[in-house]
Amino acid sequence: MNKFMGSNFMLDNDTAIELYHNYAAKQPIIDYHCHLVPQMIAENYQFRNLSEIWLGGDHYKWRAMRGNGVPEAYITGKETSDYEKFEKWADTLQHAMRNPLYHWTHLELSRIFGVDKVLNPHTAREIYDECTAMLQTEEFRAQAIMKKCNVEVVCTTDDPVDTLAYHKQIKEKPFGVKVLPTWRPDKAMAIENPANYNAYLTNLEAAADMTISSYGDLIAALKKRHDFFAEMGCKLSDHGLETFYAEDYTADDLHRIFAKVRSGKAPSQEELLQFRSGLLFDLAVMDHESNWTQQFHIGPIRNNNTKMFNLLGPDTGFDGIHDVPCAAAGYKFFDRLTQADSLTKTILYNLNPKDTEVLAVMAYTFNDGSIAGQMQLGSGWWFLDQEDGMRKQINALSALGLLSRFVGMLTDSRSFLSYPRHEYFRRILCNIIGEDVERGKLPKSEMPFIGQMVADISYGNAKKFFEF
Amino acid sequence: MNKFMGSNFMLDNDTAIELYHNYAAKQPIIDYHCHLVPQMIAENYQFRNLSEIWLGGDHYKWRAMRGNGVPEAYITGKETSDYEKFEKWADTLQHAMRNPLYHWTHLELSRIFGVDKVLNPHTAREIYDECTAMLQTEEFRAQAIMKKCNVEVVCTTDDPVDTLAYHKQIKEKPFGVKVLPTWRPDKAMAIENPANYNAYLTNLEAAADMTISSYGDLIAALKKRHDFFAEMGCKLSDHGLETFYAEDYTADDLHRIFAKVRSGKAPSQEELLQFRSGLLFDLAVMDHESNWTQQFHIGPIRNNNTKMFNLLGPDTGFDGIHDVPCAAAGYKFFDRLTQADSLTKTILYNLNPKDTEVLAVMAYTFNDGSIAGQMQLGSGWWFLDQEDGMRKQINALSALGLLSRFVGMLTDSRSFLSYPRHEYFRRILCNIIGEDVERGKLPKSEMPFIGQMVADISYGNAKKFFEF
Amino acid sequence: MNKFMGSNFMLDNDTAIELYHNYAAKQPIIDYHCHLVPQMIAENYQFRNLSEIWLGGDHYKWRAMRGNGVPEAYITGKETSDYEKFEKWADTLQHAMRNPLYHWTHLELSRIFGVDKVLNPHTAREIYDECTAMLQTEEFRAQAIMKKCNVEVVCTTDDPVDTLAYHKQIKEKPFGVKVLPTWRPDKAMAIENPANYNAYLTNLEAAADMTISSYGDLIAALKKRHDFFAEMGCKLSDHGLETFYAEDYTADDLHRIFAKVRSGKAPSQEELLQFRSGLLFDLAVMDHESNWTQQFHIGPIRNNNTKMFNLLGPDTGFDGIHDVPCAAAGYKFFDRLTQADSLTKTILYNLNPKDTEVLAVMAYTFNDGSIAGQMQLGSGWWFLDQEDGMRKQINALSALGLLSRFVGMLTDSRSFLSYPRHEYFRRILCNIIGEDVERGKLPKSEMPFIGQMVADISYGNAKKFFEF
Repeated sequence: MNKFMGSNFMLDNDTAIELYHNYAAKQPIIDYHCHLVPQMIAENYQFRNLSEIWLGGDHYKWRAMRGNGVPEAYITGKETSDYEKFEKWADTLQHAMRNPLYHWTHLELSRIFGVDKVLNPHTAREIYDECTAMLQTEEFRAQAIMKKCNVEVVCTTDDPVDTLAYHKQIKEKPFGVKVLPTWRPDKAMAIENPANYNAYLTNLEAAADMTISSYGDLIAALKKRHDFFAEMGCKLSDHGLETFYAEDYTADDLHRIFAKVRSGKAPSQEELLQFRSGLLFDLAVMDHESNWTQQFHIGPIRNNNTKMFNLLGPDTGFDGIHDVPCAAAGYKFFDRLTQADSLTKTILYNLNPKDTEVLAVMAYTFNDGSIAGQMQLGSGWWFLDQEDGMRKQINALSALGLLSRFVGMLTDSRSFLSYPRHEYFRRILCNIIGEDVERGKLPKSEMPFIGQMVADISYGNAKKFFEF
Repeated sequence: MNKFMGSNFMLDNDTAIELYHNYAAKQPIIDYHCHLVPQMIAENYQFRNLSEIWLGGDHYKWRAMRGNGVPEAYITGKETSDYEKFEKWADTLQHAMRNPLYHWTHLELSRIFGVDKVLNPHTAREIYDECTAMLQTEEFRAQAIMKKCNVEVVCTTDDPVDTLAYHKQIKEKPFGVKVLPTWRPDKAMAIENPANYNAYLTNLEAAADMTISSYGDLIAALKKRHDFFAEMGCKLSDHGLETFYAEDYTADDLHRIFAKVRSGKAPSQEELLQFRSGLLFDLAVMDHESNWTQQFHIGPIRNNNTKMFNLLGPDTGFDGIHDVPCAAAGYKFFDRLTQADSLTKTILYNLNPKDTEVLAVMAYTFNDGSIAGQMQLGSGWWFLDQEDGMRKQINALSALGLLSRFVGMLTDSRSFLSYPRHEYFRRILCNIIGEDVERGKLPKSEMPFIGQMVADISYGNAKKFFEF
Repeated sequence: MNKFMGSNFMLDNDTAIELYHNYAAKQPIIDYHCHLVPQMIAENYQFRNLSEIWLGGDHYKWRAMRGNGVPEAYITGKETSDYEKFEKWADTLQHAMRNPLYHWTHLELSRIFGVDKVLNPHTAREIYDECTAMLQTEEFRAQAIMKKCNVEVVCTTDDPVDTLAYHKQIKEKPFGVKVLPTWRPDKAMAIENPANYNAYLTNLEAAADMTISSYGDLIAALKKRHDFFAEMGCKLSDHGLETFYAEDYTADDLHRIFAKVRSGKAPSQEELLQFRSGLLFDLAVMDHESNWTQQFHIGPIRNNNTKMFNLLGPDTGFDGIHDVPCAAAGYKFFDRLTQADSLTKTILYNLNPKDTEVLAVMAYTFNDGSIAGQMQLGSGWWFLDQEDGMRKQINALSALGLLSRFVGMLTDSRSFLSYPRHEYFRRILCNIIGEDVERGKLPKSEMPFIGQMVADISYGNAKKFFEF
C-alpha cells in the first residue's frame, strides 16, 4: 500500500519511482502561465494567516464550499472571521475527497509548510495555528515561498495598458526568480460594450501616449505596448476565448466597425465576430514578429450566475464549460496565419474535454518544421487540471502528437502555494510512463532517453521553447 | 482470480471488500426514480413465467436481440411462445458478454432467484423452468420481490393527470415499502401537436376540475395537480428533454402561443421554444414552492425508426443519443431561476457523454449554500448506466464537485427485478474508492469517514436530501 | 516485466495470453478496408529501400516529423536522399514514444523483417541497410509480404470510373490473396466545384459508355458501374463524409440541381446539401439491391493548410477532426432507408471521439433481425486507430451493443507493411477480455465460447458477414 503524500505518492511501480526521483523531482519550475499579482511579488507580501493565503480569491475552494452547503457569509462574507471561514473549509475539504482540492491542499501543507497531518474538522485548529505562525516569518513571505519551491521563471498575466511597474521593480531588485509579463489583450477585443470599451481605450491612449481614433490607431497603440512588453522580457501572449473567430472581413469592415463602437454604438453580432476575427489575426501577427508564443484558452462560458455576479464580480466561482464548436473557425484562423507566413509558436488549451482531440490534431496541422513542438496542445486547464484531466491530455497528446516535445505544466494560479501542482503533474507523468515501461509498452533499453524525456517535459522543453 | 457473481464480484482489493461488506451492502435501497407500474405494485402482481417478468417491455433486451439477428417475431411478436422468446434471449445473452445486460441478468438470477448458473443455450431450459416455478409462489409476487431486495422507498413516474389511485391504495394498505409518485409533466409541454395537446388538456381539465382556456388556466390547473401530488407524498419532479429551453419570451407571448395551440393551430418553431422555455420555468417555480427536487434528463433523440414506431409505439428500443449543445440554454435557464430566488434542489442527468463535464460544472454554478449537494450531477443514465458510464460519472463528479454529497443510484427501470443494479453500483463505487485508498490516493487514516461516505452515497444522502 | 515486442507484448494476464495465442494469433487476416494501390499488387511491386516502403505517402509519419521540427525538405522534398529522410525519421520516432507510430514501426520491423532492434539514431544505419537488403529479394515483393502476413482478403478503395483492370489482372493470375474492389463514389457527390464535377462526369460517361445529361442518367451510369463492381467481386461501398446528409428534397429538386451544375453553375449551400442527401440515398439503395455492406466514415475536416495543399495536394498530413453534429441527420437518413425497406448491412466509423457513443447507439436502432450485427460501429479510425482509441471503441461497442458480433479490424492503410496492426488490435482485444475473465467480470466457465468469440472478431465474423 502506497503512502498518502509519501515520497512515492502517485507512483505505483519501480520505473515510475526511478523516473520521478532521478529525473523529474530535481528540475526547477518554469511556471509560464499564472495569475500572481506582480505587486505582491515586488513587495514581498507577508500573509496574515492561513485563511488569507489559502482562501483569498480561490474560486475553486469557494465552489466546493457552496456545494457543501456553506452559506456565503463563510465564503466571501465580511461578517465572519478568517478562522470561521477556515473551519468551514476544513469540513468541506473532508467532503471533497477525490476532488483535486484534496490532493492540492495536502501537498501544499506537506511540501510548503512541512505539515503531514490530514486536514479535517479535528485537526483544523492546530493546522491553522501552526501554519499561521510560520506565515509570520521571513521564510514564508511571497518571494521566499517561490524560492523554496525551486521556481526559476514565472510569467504573470497582464493587460496591454499595464505599466509593468512592479515587473520593473522586481527586475531592478532581483531575488532569484525571473518574473516576466504576459500579454493578455482580451479587453482590446471586448467591443460588445462600447462604454466600457471606450473607457479602456482612454487607458490605452495614455499607456501608448497617442490618440486612438481609427482601427489603424488601435493597432499602432497595441503595437507600441507590444514592443514595450517585449522590452520587459515578455515571451508569451494569451487569449481567453469562447471559441476561435475566423469570419470573413475586409480592412474597411474593421475600420467601419471600430468607428461605430468608438462613437458609442454597439456592434451587431456579425460585426462583433468580424472585429474579433480581424483583431485576433492582427495580434497574432504581432506575436509572430516578436517570436513570442501565443496561447489560446478555448471554451469557458463566464459569469453565469447574475445574482452572484452583481454581488461579487467576475472570477468568483460562477464560470462554466461551454459547448460550442471550434474546429472550422480554428482551422480557418490558423490557415490564414500560415498563408500570411505569420504563425508563431502556439499552444492550444481546451476547457471542454470534447475539444481535446480536435485541438491536439489541429495543432499538428500547422507545424512547419521550424522548431519541435511549434504548435501543440497545452496541459489540462482549469476544470481539467486534475489527475483524470492530465491523464487524458497526456494520452491524447501522446497518441495524436509528440509527448516528448510537450512544454509541460503550469499552475494558472492566483496563489503562491500552488507550485506543488508541478510535482503532482510530474508524478502522474512518471507513473504513466513508468507503467508503459513495466508493461513492455516502451523498451526498457531506452531508459536514458526516457529519463531525459521526463526531465525535458518537466523543465528543459519549456526553457528552450520559450527561450527563457 | 475473482469469482463471477461471487461475494467479492467487482471488488479487486481489500479496502473495496471492506467498504462494500461493512458499509454499502447492508444499506436499504431508495429507488428515487423508476418506471414501475403502480397498479402492479398495488395489486401485488404475480408473473406467469420468467419471460414475462424479464422480457416484457424491456427495450434494452429487445435492442440486443435485434442486433443479434433475432427476428421481431421472437421479440415482440404474438406468434411465438414465451419460451421460444426466452430461448432467443438466452442465445443473445451469450453474445452480449461485456454488455451491462450480461451482469444485470446474472445478478438478478443470483440475487433474486438464487440461481448461480450461467445462462446460455445449454442452461436455458432448466433456468427457465426453475425460475418460472418460483414465480408461482407468494415470495415472488411484486411486493415480496421488493421487500426481499431491501427496498425502502420507490418513486414512480406519473403524469399530472394521473389520479394516483394505486398510490392511494398502496398507502391505505402498506406493505413495508414507501411508494411515492413523481411529477412528470412532459405532456403538458408538448404543444407541437395541437390535436394531441388539446386532448391532453381535456384530461387535465377533468383531473383539475376546472376549465382551461388560457395560459393562466393551464398554470392554475397544473398547480392544483402539483398540490395534489404533494399531498400524496411526491418529492420529485422529472423532465425528459432533448436540451434545455431558455428563449426570451413575455407573459403575452405565452398567452398568445397557448391560445393559438388551443384553437388547433400548430406553433412555429420559435413559438414552440418560447412556450417550452416559459412553461419549464413556471413548473420549476412550483417545484421550488413545494421544496421538491427537480430532475432534468437531457439528451435523447426519440422514436427514430418510423417503421417500427408505427408497429410498436414509443419506448420499444428505437431511441438514441442526441448531440445538440446544452450549455448556453442550461446556464440561462438556471440563472433565471436564481435571479427569481426560485431554484429548488436539482439533479441533472445526461445521455450524451459529451455533456457529463458540462453538466457537472453547471450544477456547481448555482449552489447557494443552503443545503449540501443542492444541485448535482445525477447517476449514469440509460445508455450510460453501465460500469464504464458509472465510472465516468463518479470520476467527473469527484473531480468537478463533491462525490461525498452524491444522492446515488436509481434503477430508472420498468422491472421488479432491477434492484441488483444498486448492488452493482455500490460494488463499483467501493472498488473505485478502495483502489484510491490502497494506492495512497486517499489516506487510510480517514477510513471511518470514508466508510460513512460510502454508506451515505448508498443510502443516507438520498434519505436526507429528498426528505423521505 | 513484459517484453517490448515480445511474444506476450500487450498481454498482461494469463487468460489474455491464452486467448491470443490459442484463438487470435493463428487467424488469417481479412483486411476489408484499405488504400493499397492495385497496380502495385498486380505487378508485384519491388521496393527500392526502407524509406520508399515506409515513408512514401505515409502522412502519419510526415505529421510527426513536422511536429518534431524536421524541415519539409526531409519529408516530401526532392532535394534530400532517401537515407537522409530515414535519418530524420529515426530521430522523430524516438521522440514519438507513446504514439501509435512507435508500436507500429517496431511491430513491422519485428514481424515482417525479423529485426528486433529498437530504431533510434544509433541503430538507424544498420536497420536501414539490413531491411533494404531484404527488400531486394523475392520474399519482400508486394505479394510475398501479403502472403507472409497470412492475408486472405484485401478490399481496396476505388472510384466508380475505375476500370478495375489491375483487379482483373490479379484475378486472372491469382497469388493466394483475394483482392477485391470497394465502391467509393465520393467524387460523384462533389458538385460544389462544377468544373471538376463535369470533368468527372466525362470520365463516368466513358466508363459507363453512355451520355449523362440528367440526374436520371447519373443514377443509370452509376448503377451500370455498380453492377460492374459487383461482377468484379465488390462487397462493400464506402463514403467519406463530414457528417450525414438528410435534407428534405424532391425528385424535381435533384433534377434541377444536377442540371444547374451540369451547365457549369455552382449550387447554393442548400442545393448542395439536398443533392448530397438525395444521391447518398440513391447510392444506399443500390448497395441494398446488391447486398453489399455500406461504410460511412464520418467526421474529418480536410485540407486545412492551404499553403501546403498548394504544394502537396490532398492526403499529405493536413487533415483534422471536425466537430459538427451527426445525430439528427444520421437518424433521418437511416430512417428513410428503413421506411423504403432499403437498408443494407452498414458500418459506421467516427473520427471525432465525441461521436463514438452516438454512432454505436444509432447503429443498434436499425437492426431488423435479419443478420447479426447488421448495422454496427466500426473499428477505431485514423486518428483513433491506436490503443486508447481501440479500447474506447471496444468498450463503447460492448456497453452499447454486441462486441461478439463485431467484424473487427482493418488497416485503412496505403502501405504493404501495415498488417501487424491486426496483431496489435488482437492483442489489445485479448488483453481486455482476458482481464475481464481474470477479474471475474466474465465467467471462466464460458471460456470455449469466449475463445470462439475472439476468433470470430479476429476473422470469422468478417468472413461470414461480408460473404467473402
